[in-house]
Amino acid sequence: MMNLTDLFATRADRMRASEIRELLKLLDQPDIISFAGGIPDPALFPREAFADAYADLLGGAGANAALQYQVSEGYRPLRTWLAAEMGRMGVACDEGNLFITSGSQQGLDYLGKLFLSPGDTALVTWPTYLGALQAFNAYEPRYDRLTPAGGNMTPAAYRDAARATKSDGATGGEAKFAYLVPDFANPTGETLDRAGREGVLDLAADLGIAVIEDAAYRSLRFEGEDVPSILALDCARSGGIEKARTLFCGSFSKILAPGLRVGWICAPRAIVDKLVLLKQAGDLHSPSINQMAIHRVAETVYGAQVERLKAAYGARRDALLAALEAHMPQGVSWSRPEGGMFVWVTLPETLDAAALLAEAVREARVAFVPGAAFHPDGTGRNTLRLSFTLADERAVTQGIPRLAALVRKAIAAA
Amino acid sequence: MMNLTDLFATRADRMRASEIRELLKLLDQPDIISFAGGIPDPALFPREAFADAYADLLGGAGANAALQYQVSEGYRPLRTWLAAEMGRMGVACDEGNLFITSGSQQGLDYLGKLFLSPGDTALVTWPTYLGALQAFNAYEPRYDRLTPAGGNMTPAAYRDAARATKSDGATGGEAKFAYLVPDFANPTGETLDRAGREGVLDLAADLGIAVIEDAAYRSLRFEGEDVPSILALDCARSGGIEKARTLFCGSFSKILAPGLRVGWICAPRAIVDKLVLLKQAGDLHSPSINQMAIHRVAETVYGAQVERLKAAYGARRDALLAALEAHMPQGVSWSRPEGGMFVWVTLPETLDAAALLAEAVREARVAFVPGAAFHPDGTGRNTLRLSFTLADERAVTQGIPRLAALVRKAIAAA
Repeated sequence: MMNLTDLFATRADRMRASEIRELLKLLDQPDIISFAGGIPDPALFPREAFADAYADLLGGAGANAALQYQVSEGYRPLRTWLAAEMGRMGVACDEGNLFITSGSQQGLDYLGKLFLSPGDTALVTWPTYLGALQAFNAYEPRYDRLTPAGGNMTPAAYRDAARATKSDGATGGEAKFAYLVPDFANPTGETLDRAGREGVLDLAADLGIAVIEDAAYRSLRFEGEDVPSILALDCARSGGIEKARTLFCGSFSKILAPGLRVGWICAPRAIVDKLVLLKQAGDLHSPSINQMAIHRVAETVYGAQVERLKAAYGARRDALLAALEAHMPQGVSWSRPEGGMFVWVTLPETLDAAALLAEAVREARVAFVPGAAFHPDGTGRNTLRLSFTLADERAVTQGIPRLAALVRKAIAAA
Repeated sequence: MMNLTDLFATRADRMRASEIRELLKLLDQPDIISFAGGIPDPALFPREAFADAYADLLGGAGANAALQYQVSEGYRPLRTWLAAEMGRMGVACDEGNLFITSGSQQGLDYLGKLFLSPGDTALVTWPTYLGALQAFNAYEPRYDRLTPAGGNMTPAAYRDAARATKSDGATGGEAKFAYLVPDFANPTGETLDRAGREGVLDLAADLGIAVIEDAAYRSLRFEGEDVPSILALDCARSGGIEKARTLFCGSFSKILAPGLRVGWICAPRAIVDKLVLLKQAGDLHSPSINQMAIHRVAETVYGAQVERLKAAYGARRDALLAALEAHMPQGVSWSRPEGGMFVWVTLPETLDAAALLAEAVREARVAFVPGAAFHPDGTGRNTLRLSFTLADERAVTQGIPRLAALVRKAIAAA
């Protein structure tokens, strides 16, 4: 018989290990000032609204529905609320275009499962959201680089690159979708302008592929004007959502609370129908009680909660940017996000942020996420991500000077 | 460019459409007496215990943790509670052997993802749980028939059958696991005896494969003695859980409430580690708040709730079996489950339960699930599943005579 090692040498072995998460496990010591975790500030959770929602649900006539099985596409009143919210974004649609996911991470996993066979190509920005790479990696794609702000490869060049990876007689290799976070991206904090979004749609049309628009941070704009969502631009040019090629992944995690795991996909009905089959097979449905609670809380406090987060996170971004300006040495640059949760720092090319992290944690008691993990090819070693959602005054006034001192030392030693 | 139909012709198209669910959508009319849905009786949900749990969580110091992200393996106190529960079942383990899933359906999906590549073989009983076939189908296996009560193919014959399906030079084909519901199975209600369980372990050892033990109904025994779980037998023969080949899928859906989507897998740590990677990539974690609520409710009412369900469902099973005995014509037989939720009815071979269902709904206003859907090869057309969890006195005294009259008519017409 096979031994157990062979028995359990299965598909997951071929997945990329999440080294970065291992590193971050070391950072739980209380005296560490962490700019690492991309998590919302729990002090800002609308706790009372959730307490009221769960109490109403479990005390009233809705209790049985909250505790019972639910349809796979999701709780209809929540889908109707989301259709109106998408309408406010310029996407005319109805609840049949809305599919509830267990967080937007599940949306990315299902879209990977739907589109990718081993060896297919996914176009992604460099760097890109690590969780998207983890979701897609399970389906064993190759990656090509998407540079929507300018300098994309021609459609013909993307086709040639995909074709070149096929072995004789093998199927697959074709590009299947372009994935991007157009607003206040994780990890860079940058926002793609309208021309860049139109360019992505042009490229997708030429290649005949879908666009996955990850809009997890979209509502968190502190300054400047909204840029239309890619799905809204797609609907305008294609004649409506049923003809669109863009699949919009939204999330309540950053605005209301991540612990309930409620997100959504807004897409043509043909795609929603396929996602429903994946959901029936995958986990039947997202928890009924959480979908109903999110619906109640969204109806009552969503707008006010968005404003509250913008004020709090906007002030923290300002403080972080001011501290970087005051303390970082020449040769270090960073993004100036108009919203979201992250600032992206580029160190001189001779520096390695992963090596710097080890020293930062050990000596300076400061943590961040090294940037290489966000690059499918492991480049970007001289970059790092700072999250400002938990960056209070102490974190900024003590943590950034300590980090800057380390960077100076590293530059001097390089 | 490709048209949208081509663009969206993706992997989900190759999944088996869930025809049976389409049929069941027709059955929502209130005057229908339904034995179809495999759902718990909502009148028996421990609603007050859940109301208390959510109120405590959101009113107290635990609120931030309940609303925040959680580790992928699941809430540690719940895993510790489950390790003790598995210990009572004869499986010595600790929380490192427990992995929290979003319902046991997600456990089946993840195990399919972990083990199956297209063309691999899964051994399943005929009939088997429809949701397991849907979960596994996404990974495109072939199925071979497992007959644990006796008459299994020899290991050599299974190997030959798998090998015969490979095309020249193709990899894959090997059997990867045996899947079964040993206690009060969905759909048959039958329980596999100890010798049958040992036989499955013998076969799995010969083939060098895993065993997936779906224990969704195990706690719901109304009469007779518990048969040791396959995992417990495996631990006894292999020397402990780390050397076991059995992966135990449990669920709170049938005892506490399905709407929270909380289940678990108990397995060797090597498997739990791989499942954690799938979970990180798939949906990050199951909802924090629901895991914490389930833990509180399990700590306070689990044992009492099991007793309450046994009494209620046991009485409904008795009434259903008595009505079948009183009304069904000769040539019809059925299982006599010692627990669970289902009775399995076998009609004369000339009858087609799917055709009977259409007539039953239209004329007799009675619904059930035709048995063919539970067979990977579409056999079993003369079988059907009756659920007794919602079968109150009216359902049994009116519904079964109506159904029996239809069967008589069909036998006469055949």
